Amino acid sequence: MNTPVYPVRWQNDRVLLIDQNRLPNEYTYVEIDLVEDMAEAISTMIVRGAPAIGVAAAYGMYLGAKEIKTTDRDEFLAQLTEIGKTLRATRPTAVNLFWAIDRMEATALQCAGSVAAIIPQLLVAAQQINSDDIATCQAIGAHGVAVLPSSPAKLCLLTHCNAGALATAGYGTALGVVRSAWTQGRLARLYADETRPRLQGAKLTSWECVQEGIPVTVIADSMAAHCMRQGLIDAVVVGADRIAANGDTANKIGTYSLALVAKAHNVPFFVAAPRSTIDFSLHDGSGIPIEERHPSELYQIGETIVCPPGVEFYNPAFDVTPANLIQAIITEFGAFPPAEIIDLKNR
Amino acid sequence: MNTPVYPVRWQNDRVLLIDQNRLPNEYTYVEIDLVEDMAEAISTMIVRGAPAIGVAAAYGMYLGAKEIKTTDRDEFLAQLTEIGKTLRATRPTAVNLFWAIDRMEATALQCAGSVAAIIPQLLVAAQQINSDDIATCQAIGAHGVAVLPSSPAKLCLLTHCNAGALATAGYGTALGVVRSAWTQGRLARLYADETRPRLQGAKLTSWECVQEGIPVTVIADSMAAHCMRQGLIDAVVVGADRIAANGDTANKIGTYSLALVAKAHNVPFFVAAPRSTIDFSLHDGSGIPIEERHPSELYQIGETIVCPPGVEFYNPAFDVTPANLIQAIITEFGAFPPAEIIDLKNR
Repeated sequence: MNTPVYPVRWQNDRVLLIDQNRLPNEYTYVEIDLVEDMAEAISTMIVRGAPAIGVAAAYGMYLGAKEIKTTDRDEFLAQLTEIGKTLRATRPTAVNLFWAIDRMEATALQCAGSVAAIIPQLLVAAQQINSDDIATCQAIGAHGVAVLPSSPAKLCLLTHCNAGALATAGYGTALGVVRSAWTQGRLARLYADETRPRLQGAKLTSWECVQEGIPVTVIADSMAAHCMRQGLIDAVVVGADRIAANGDTANKIGTYSLALVAKAHNVPFFVAAPRSTIDFSLHDGSGIPIEERHPSELYQIGETIVCPPGVEFYNPAFDVTPANLIQAIITEFGAFPPAEIIDLKNR
Repeated sequence: MNTPVYPVRWQNDRVLLIDQNRLPNEYTYVEIDLVEDMAEAISTMIVRGAPAIGVAAAYGMYLGAKEIKTTDRDEFLAQLTEIGKTLRATRPTAVNLFWAIDRMEATALQCAGSVAAIIPQLLVAAQQINSDDIATCQAIGAHGVAVLPSSPAKLCLLTHCNAGALATAGYGTALGVVRSAWTQGRLARLYADETRPRLQGAKLTSWECVQEGIPVTVIADSMAAHCMRQGLIDAVVVGADRIAANGDTANKIGTYSLALVAKAHNVPFFVAAPRSTIDFSLHDGSGIPIEERHPSELYQIGETIVCPPGVEFYNPAFDVTPANLIQAIITEFGAFPPAEIIDLKNR
C-alpha cells in the first residue's frame, strides 16, 4: 500500500514501462532499449495517457539518438528528425507527444557541440521532462483542491478514464487532484467511470486507488447521470489529451457526454492537465484530429466476443468537450476559466 | 435471414424460451415445464425485456396452476395468488410482469366454473397475451414511423438496450419502430448502444438486426453524444420498463443519460412501449423501484475479471427519464406527448 506508481522509469540505461495492458491482474514491467520498441509500446498502449506518452517519447528520442551511427552533426540532426516522425505517428491526438519530441529536437539543435556531446544532453533533457512532469502533477493537485466546491467537507468526485499516476510520470493530473483531496481529508469517495471500450477506469483508476487505500466505486459510463440525479456526485475531474486555445478539450471518448450530464445537474466539471497539453496553434477544438481505433476494442473483451458477425462498429478514441461546459482548467500554474488559458501562452 | 424471432413460444404443452444469455454465439431454446423454472428463467434473464417477461409470466401462471393439487376453487385461487407472488418477486421494475399476473388472476376469478374448467382458460389467456403482444408491437411500429422526423428521407436512428423481438412476444417496441421504418424504406442505419453492463445492445439488438439484414453500427454508450454532435443521429427510440402516469419513464440504465445528451443536440427522443407498461397508480417516476443487480455484471465479462480486488461497485439496472425529455410515447393506440398518456387510462 502507498507505494508510488511510476509508469515510465529510467534505470540501468534503459526504460522500464509498466505494462498497462496487463493491469490490474499483473503488475509487470516491459524493458525498452530501442526506439522502435518504444514506438510500438506507445501505439499498443503499454504506456498511455498524454503526459506519460510525452515522457516515454522523450526517452524514445534518446534511445533512437544513441543508435544513430554518424558523427556528422547535420546528418545526426536529420536522422533525429526522422526518429521524431516515427514517434509522432504513434498516437495522433495527444499533443504532449509532439511537445516532448519538439523539446528533444530543440535540445539537440541548441547543443552547440559534437554528436558525442549532444547525446548525453538528450538523456538529461528526457530526465528533466520526467521529473518536471511529477512536479507539474503535484502542483495541479494542489491548485485543484483549492477550486473544488467548499461544501460538503468531504466530497464525492467522479472521474473518467485514467488521468492518474499511470497516465503521467507519476501522481496524475485528474487523479492528482483526487490524491491531493484525499491527503487533505477532503475526499469521501471517488466514483470511477469504467470507461468503455478499453476500461481504463475499471482496470487502472480503480487499481491506483486500491494501491493507496482511496475508497473507489466503479460504475458503467452510462450510470453517471443517474448518480448525479441522486446527488451522489459533488464534482467531476477529468484529464485531457489536447486543449485548444479557447479551452475546448479533447479527452477520452465519453468525456463530452459526461460534461453534458454534469451541466444538466449543475455539477461543476473540471479539466486537470499540464500547460503542455494546450495546443495554442488551434483556435478551437474543431481542428483536433480524433483517432479511431480498431473495432475489436468494442466486440472483444478478454477472450469473449460480444457481437455477432455482420455488425459494423464506430470506435472514436476521443471526443471534444466545448469550453462552455468546463468550469475551470487546472494547470500547474493555477486553475483558470477556459477563456483565460490563452494567458498561459507565454509562460 | 428474415426468420421472425419469438423469444417465448408455447409448443407441445410447454414453453420454449430463447436462451438470451447465450446469444449471439448460440441460438438455443430452454424448455420450461414448471413455474419454478420460469421464475428462475426470468430472474437470471434467460428471458428479459418487460413485455416478454409479461408473456413468460403469464405462461408461468398457467404452468403453476396445472401443478395445483386441490379441486377446491377457493383453495386453488389462494394457491394461484401465491404462485403470482413468486413470479412478481423475480424482477421489481417491469410493470408488465405485474400486469400479466393480474390479468391471469382476474381470468381465474372471473371463470365461474370448477378448477378443471379454470385451468384451460388460463392457457387461453396466456396465449391471448402472447398474440396480443405481437399485434401491439406491430401497431407501435406503425404509429412510430408516422411520428419520426420527416427528413431526411432515410433516417439514422439510435437505440439503447434491446427493446426488440427478443424483449417482447415478437417484432419489438423500439425495434418495432425500427423494423417498420426499415420495411417502409425510411431507415438508413441503426446505431445500437452496446448497453453496459449486460451488453444487450451489442449482443441482442445487433443480432436481431443481422438476422433481418438491417444495417447496424454498435457504439459504446458514451459515444452517443459524440455521434450526435457530428450529426450522425436523426432520432432516438428506446423501450420502457415502467412509465408513470405523468410520462416519467424507467428503462435500462443509461437511458436517462441518452435523453439528456439528445436534448442537448435537439435530437428527438421517443419511448416506444405498450399501454401495459404505463403504471397509472404512480403519479411520477419517483415511485418506481430501481432494481440493483450483482456487481459481477460490472467486474466480470465472460471469463475476464476487469477490476482489482478491493473496489466497490454500484449497479442500478434502470434509471428514470423525466417526461420533459421525451418528445412522444409511442403506444399501440398512437403516439402521445407524455402529458397526454393519462388519457389512455381507460382504454
